[in-house]
Amino acid sequence: MPTPRKTYSVAESGAFVEVMELEPYASGPLDGLRFAVKDLFDLGGYKTGCGNPDWARTHPVAATNAVCVDQLLLAGARCVGKTVCDELAFSLDGENVFYGTPLNRRAPERVPGGSSSGSAAAVACGLADFALGTDTGGSVRVPASNCGLFGLRPSHGLISVAGVNPFAPSFDTVGLLAASADILALAAAVLLSCQVPDGVEPAAVHLIKEAWEIADPEVREALAPALARLRRLWGARVRETSMRLIDREAPESGLKTWYQNYCTIQWSEIWSSLGSWIEAVNPEFAPRTRVNFELTRTLDRRQIGSAIQRREEYCRALQEFLGPGVLLCLPTTPALAPLKLTLGLDRTSTSQAGYYPRTLALTAIAGLGRLPQVTLPLAEAGGVPLGLSLLAAHGNDAFLLSAARLLAEGF
Amino acid sequence: MPTPRKTYSVAESGAFVEVMELEPYASGPLDGLRFAVKDLFDLGGYKTGCGNPDWARTHPVAATNAVCVDQLLLAGARCVGKTVCDELAFSLDGENVFYGTPLNRRAPERVPGGSSSGSAAAVACGLADFALGTDTGGSVRVPASNCGLFGLRPSHGLISVAGVNPFAPSFDTVGLLAASADILALAAAVLLSCQVPDGVEPAAVHLIKEAWEIADPEVREALAPALARLRRLWGARVRETSMRLIDREAPESGLKTWYQNYCTIQWSEIWSSLGSWIEAVNPEFAPRTRVNFELTRTLDRRQIGSAIQRREEYCRALQEFLGPGVLLCLPTTPALAPLKLTLGLDRTSTSQAGYYPRTLALTAIAGLGRLPQVTLPLAEAGGVPLGLSLLAAHGNDAFLLSAARLLAEGF
Repeated sequence: MPTPRKTYSVAESGAFVEVMELEPYASGPLDGLRFAVKDLFDLGGYKTGCGNPDWARTHPVAATNAVCVDQLLLAGARCVGKTVCDELAFSLDGENVFYGTPLNRRAPERVPGGSSSGSAAAVACGLADFALGTDTGGSVRVPASNCGLFGLRPSHGLISVAGVNPFAPSFDTVGLLAASADILALAAAVLLSCQVPDGVEPAAVHLIKEAWEIADPEVREALAPALARLRRLWGARVRETSMRLIDREAPESGLKTWYQNYCTIQWSEIWSSLGSWIEAVNPEFAPRTRVNFELTRTLDRRQIGSAIQRREEYCRALQEFLGPGVLLCLPTTPALAPLKLTLGLDRTSTSQAGYYPRTLALTAIAGLGRLPQVTLPLAEAGGVPLGLSLLAAHGNDAFLLSAARLLAEGF
Repeated sequence: MPTPRKTYSVAESGAFVEVMELEPYASGPLDGLRFAVKDLFDLGGYKTGCGNPDWARTHPVAATNAVCVDQLLLAGARCVGKTVCDELAFSLDGENVFYGTPLNRRAPERVPGGSSSGSAAAVACGLADFALGTDTGGSVRVPASNCGLFGLRPSHGLISVAGVNPFAPSFDTVGLLAASADILALAAAVLLSCQVPDGVEPAAVHLIKEAWEIADPEVREALAPALARLRRLWGARVRETSMRLIDREAPESGLKTWYQNYCTIQWSEIWSSLGSWIEAVNPEFAPRTRVNFELTRTLDRRQIGSAIQRREEYCRALQEFLGPGVLLCLPTTPALAPLKLTLGLDRTSTSQAGYYPRTLALTAIAGLGRLPQVTLPLAEAGGVPLGLSLLAAHGNDAFLLSAARLLAEGF
């Protein structure tokens, strides 16, 4: 993939809310690497702003680093700054009215994607080798895809979220963005305390039929060469599979109803996590953020029971279907990164050809399933980057990272 | 087991910080059952006090219920009140200088155990059929054992913690206390969205040698009849197994060094979660609580890396050893509930025959391993209740609850 052809300044990148240097504690596998940190993670001695000035104003300075930040400093990496994110992490856009829109280096007229927007811009602009993001509903995977980066959403529960602001805890994960599969694997191995093996071959790779169908034709077309490489690499083990084979209770309507199920759980948890602060402080939000939180406040919480029930049935079906060597494969996003300032107020609407419902339908496959997912920057359409995603069984992150590294080689 | 011989009043129980009635939203499997909620869970319209008056004073009223509370109300249960807990959940004692010590009904001269002390007292006194607690390092299992109740610590990550105050997120779970195995299974099935099967037989039951060795002789003696029943029930499938067979990297020194490993991760996460508030507010704490938080503030965070590394090695070893039908068995606590007002200031000391280090060494087996654990009130020593614990592989909560119900039958 193209690497930055020029040096970008911090100001040009729009990536940072604060630039600083935190020295590594020790020498280790991440020696010499610089990382940036989404402003949802605590850095001791700094305010964690979560992308909203009223949040920063009403919260104290962090007493210490998030545990995952300490893990990286202990492994030899150097922290170079705190990055812009969408307000309280509640968006896939990357347009923050208070802190600006970080640069989508390869497609400057388009949004970088969110909510880990500044983390993506920092890496894409060469100002960091990798970056910490959080991924609840796609907040690492979407900006990685939009900006042409590798991105990891790990298995839920495996990387410590201590010192990371809670959003929707049943889905919240600490993720990574990196410019290469090697650096992604190096940093992930530290956070997951695992070793990423070399040259592991998958037993099966399932192209999820409904996920490919939901994508725009231009996305499918752009990803065709990457799929061709996948087939060359893993031959007859690559097959087309319907979600209904994995989960017999999957709705006939395909993935779109998953969006609703995911949203019910996510919105109920968001209001449980942030509603008290919002009602007490009445913070200033961007109009789109206000509408989003209104959805969580007014959710009919009687839907929680059946949504969680459905989620657990799906997880149990996945557990039976996914062996240790099995991968799922899908487009990371169903559409190109939206043009800046074009996203409407109502994320539930079908404006922008249903950008939100379709994107969340794809990201919810890993989200609801607690699965790890790696997005690889293996495609572009008219210069706009697009990611291909691999997913594995819960806990099989090392295998997944190994397979992703193999697929990325020589691309 | 003995059931309450008299009715206890709310005042006698010392269990509640607030009594209220939240009607069920619907009819369901928990129709007619009353539950109490540890004051670490949000109830909409009430303050969540977390056992400390300065916490209550500096936080707003909760906007809505914790997600797990809504799950129970949707399933037909009625909420009857908020219960006393140890300050910020940081204790296994159950002695709260601000809100009093909830009654250990069967051993009134002893502590109920914490931090879900009031939840245990409410159920033991017959004022609730079951209760929500949190269990990070034993906060459901220890009070259940001390008070003669059934208790569940579920697999980490399976029950929503949204609306529950974070403490050490890598270990935090939503647990249950109940007076019978049937009610425990009913309520757990709702929260876990699973069905608890009837009459499931384990393939193997491993009595963990080091865990039994760490227990006081009087505890081993008191649990002997329960073990005899276990052997009658499951015969040759019951065997003695060393932790070193499960985890070849387990220290020769046995379980005591696990205490240190567990504490490093837990303390680092506690300071990441609560340190900012403590430094900003300088709250009034009980002397013992202040000492505890001082341990988390002054921890050498350079230990985090190796502690997490060791934890993940252990989890991977467990994953290989524990099949779907395999149980581990150990005493829930290594000693009887301490007499009231006898616990010293320093939890790391070996006073009280090392009550904390030994207890956490036992509770850390599930904690570090992300495993579900059920404690069964199958024993007593001189009238003081003692629990026997069964553990299963991560995600095998339904099987574990089924086995626990079978073992409890007729006892």
